[in-house]
Amino acid sequence: MRDIPVLDKGFVRLIESMGGDAGVLQAARVSFAGSSKGEVADRRLIEYLLKHQHLTPFEHAVLKFHVKAPIFVARQWFRHRFGAYNEISFRYTTPSEDFYTPESFRAQDQKNKQGSVAAPSLDQEGLRRSFAASVDLAFKTYHGMVEAGVAREMARMVLPVTVYTEFFWTVNARSLMNFLWLRADAHAQPEIQRYAEALSEGFAQTCPWTYAAFLSHLWTGKNAKLDAEKDRLCSASS
Amino acid sequence: MRDIPVLDKGFVRLIESMGGDAGVLQAARVSFAGSSKGEVADRRLIEYLLKHQHLTPFEHAVLKFHVKAPIFVARQWFRHRFGAYNEISFRYTTPSEDFYTPESFRAQDQKNKQGSVAAPSLDQEGLRRSFAASVDLAFKTYHGMVEAGVAREMARMVLPVTVYTEFFWTVNARSLMNFLWLRADAHAQPEIQRYAEALSEGFAQTCPWTYAAFLSHLWTGKNAKLDAEKDRLCSASS
Amino acid sequence: MRDIPVLDKGFVRLIESMGGDAGVLQAARVSFAGSSKGEVADRRLIEYLLKHQHLTPFEHAVLKFHVKAPIFVARQWFRHRFGAYNEISFRYTTPSEDFYTPESFRAQDQKNKQGSVAAPSLDQEGLRRSFAASVDLAFKTYHGMVEAGVAREMARMVLPVTVYTEFFWTVNARSLMNFLWLRADAHAQPEIQRYAEALSEGFAQTCPWTYAAFLSHLWTGKNAKLDAEKDRLCSASS
Amino acid sequence: MRDIPVLDKGFVRLIESMGGDAGVLQAARVSFAGSSKGEVADRRLIEYLLKHQHLTPFEHAVLKFHVKAPIFVARQWFRHRFGAYNEISFRYTTPSEDFYTPESFRAQDQKNKQGSVAAPSLDQEGLRRSFAASVDLAFKTYHGMVEAGVAREMARMVLPVTVYTEFFWTVNARSLMNFLWLRADAHAQPEIQRYAEALSEGFAQTCPWTYAAFLSHLWTGKNAKLDAEKDRLCSASS
Repeated sequence: MRDIPVLDKGFVRLIESMGGDAGVLQAARVSFAGSSKGEVADRRLIEYLLKHQHLTPFEHAVLKFHVKAPIFVARQWFRHRFGAYNEISFRYTTPSEDFYTPESFRAQDQKNKQGSVAAPSLDQEGLRRSFAASVDLAFKTYHGMVEAGVAREMARMVLPVTVYTEFFWTVNARSLMNFLWLRADAHAQPEIQRYAEALSEGFAQTCPWTYAAFLSHLWTGKNAKLDAEKDRLCSASS
Repeated sequence: MRDIPVLDKGFVRLIESMGGDAGVLQAARVSFAGSSKGEVADRRLIEYLLKHQHLTPFEHAVLKFHVKAPIFVARQWFRHRFGAYNEISFRYTTPSEDFYTPESFRAQDQKNKQGSVAAPSLDQEGLRRSFAASVDLAFKTYHGMVEAGVAREMARMVLPVTVYTEFFWTVNARSLMNFLWLRADAHAQPEIQRYAEALSEGFAQTCPWTYAAFLSHLWTGKNAKLDAEKDRLCSASS
Repeated sequence: MRDIPVLDKGFVRLIESMGGDAGVLQAARVSFAGSSKGEVADRRLIEYLLKHQHLTPFEHAVLKFHVKAPIFVARQWFRHRFGAYNEISFRYTTPSEDFYTPESFRAQDQKNKQGSVAAPSLDQEGLRRSFAASVDLAFKTYHGMVEAGVAREMARMVLPVTVYTEFFWTVNARSLMNFLWLRADAHAQPEIQRYAEALSEGFAQTCPWTYAAFLSHLWTGKNAKLDAEKDRLCSASS
Repeated sequence: MRDIPVLDKGFVRLIESMGGDAGVLQAARVSFAGSSKGEVADRRLIEYLLKHQHLTPFEHAVLKFHVKAPIFVARQWFRHRFGAYNEISFRYTTPSEDFYTPESFRAQDQKNKQGSVAAPSLDQEGLRRSFAASVDLAFKTYHGMVEAGVAREMARMVLPVTVYTEFFWTVNARSLMNFLWLRADAHAQPEIQRYAEALSEGFAQTCPWTYAAFLSHLWTGKNAKLDAEKDRLCSASS
């Protein structure tokens, strides 16, 4: 898969996958010793499994992603425990200067304590300036400490959570659907929603029938991209 | 992979795999942003990871097996929780007549309460006869109940744990090594040891460097097949 | 907790628990640094968490059960991987003569391939007789082999899956709710439904608010006992 | 348990626990239907389980901790997936001004790329000054943005990973031993070593026999505190 750019300097890249829809179907069918009777029956079985929460067959489809994301996004990501993670270590390596700067700062949502809303009235120019000044000083301090001989594992303590990190993530389709359900939704922070959308492309590519069934039968959230795909699928099938 | 026959009617079949040694190395190297410097360095890195219990990179190599094994073996197998399982259901389907009959019955080990030892003095012929008679009656009773209209989920209650079942198992290399460590060892029941040996072939085929490093640096058990491979590897490398 | 008898010779016993509703609330509140404002607010928070799938706080309430159940029930149980299991080993110990005999045999459901239905027309007396004869021969064969010196781990191979086993199960409230959702429901085999009902008593006792919220907001299955409790709760709160 | 202070402003607090050594023993003994024969036999059983990697019984002892630690320590901590976490959210709440300032900065280890060593020659005074200046600007920028109306979830992006966070962690004794094995060891960053030492006190208090057996039979790392306890235990038992 080509890199899917996310935010200003991040990306999601599908490295490899195993199983796909066929792997899900094979695992599901061992339960009742059946075999495929064509696409219509296969897609109906996938829908049946999802609707009735028979989710173990979806663990046999596995995807591996390479991700570059700000630390505060990675922090939310790593709360999902059912997957394999390997992350770049700032004990070993010096981070690049990459950090995330939002295109525009959102205002605190007054109704939803954890949310944010578009804020045309904010002084975006000024905010960006003070944001950049703070991050710049952090990097300058970091490099100054490293040059003075301070261990990288200590110098990195000044770096802000908007700095980009990289990791590999191997995850099965069941856990990936759970991730999308929670992180593509409007309740999630917009930055991680963008990553969920990028992941959904890798998912659609490797497990197209499962992804379609996920949208039609599990997805209950709000997300412009996923909602549009759901609408397209529904009108195509009717 | 061809089927590997196990016991009298069982098998282990490697269906597919993802990642392999290269996937392990790629995941490991993100931590310190390095890249391959050839086979010697790659194998040394795998050995380093295993020796220092940096085991997460091995979660990026994933294998899917199709297994046919007696229920009592499957029961020990399913205690390993880090993997995906889908098993044939005797609520849906009628089991074939396949059941496991040991080539020879082993005697109770007098030193090790849970173990068994070869027993030339046992009346193998007579044991096999009474074993078969008991299993035959179970199957006859099963079929009689099903013909009388009893639900399969109830009729199967008379079936013994020596009856064969089938399942798919998707597992990563880290969990597979843990399985081999525990189940290929002489302390495990000999029947599941045979399955562990068959799995080791699929492992050797998909992750040859990891398997070699596992034998050299983690494996501390006793198993004729694995010990011989370890000896062969050690003499080859010296 | 007193033993709750299940089936003809099984039981569920709550051994100990940790956290309870208070533990759930404490963990949830760290997220927004709040503290309790009384029962109404506490119960509302629990309902909010369940409805929005914020399920991690429920992992801080932990229950430990001692269970005696037929092997075929234990086999379904152990498919739930998020919990700690320790089971009696028939490699070490000789099973008691306990096996499960159904009060009445159910017929195969013609609509639902995996289900069963009440069957007044079946020859219950005759079925019970042939069932008992088959299990009796299995036990006789087992004991004969053990007396002849055969290792317990081999002799047990003739024992049917209706034989009782015992295990300890430590599980958190999140996984327990998932278990109840799947196994108390009418789609599950009636025998494991009885165990799910017994577990629900231990759950109700240790986490009464969470259990009530589970019934009101998550439970969508069919089960006479749980449905009655749900009705009682709804009429009480209205 | 009283708070155990860690670093300059952090702590570890044992909130509650379940099972303890007795819970481990009870779970282990179901396997062979035995019962306690006094302390000597009980401790020997725990040692046997650990030495032979029979680790499931240790999952029945569960501990819940409240932790306050810098974000970079929490990031290493949350890589341990087998436990329940709930963390304060900086999307909802405004962080206090608490951040970690090292007593003294360590130099980069020239032999071990990820390590650090004591560095008397570093200009500690100057380093602390530039460190504080960078963190101060980050907090000032943060507060400036919040006052301007920027959503907390965005303003927090400038905050450095040395800022303190808080979380609840429920973990079983098996996973806790794995954590200590990896994080109390000299290869781990010294800051998380201090947390591992604090956790070991809660462990020793709730599972004294298991902790002693862990030190004697599993622990192979280097840590002044744990090594001293191991020495004390060994000389006491000889």
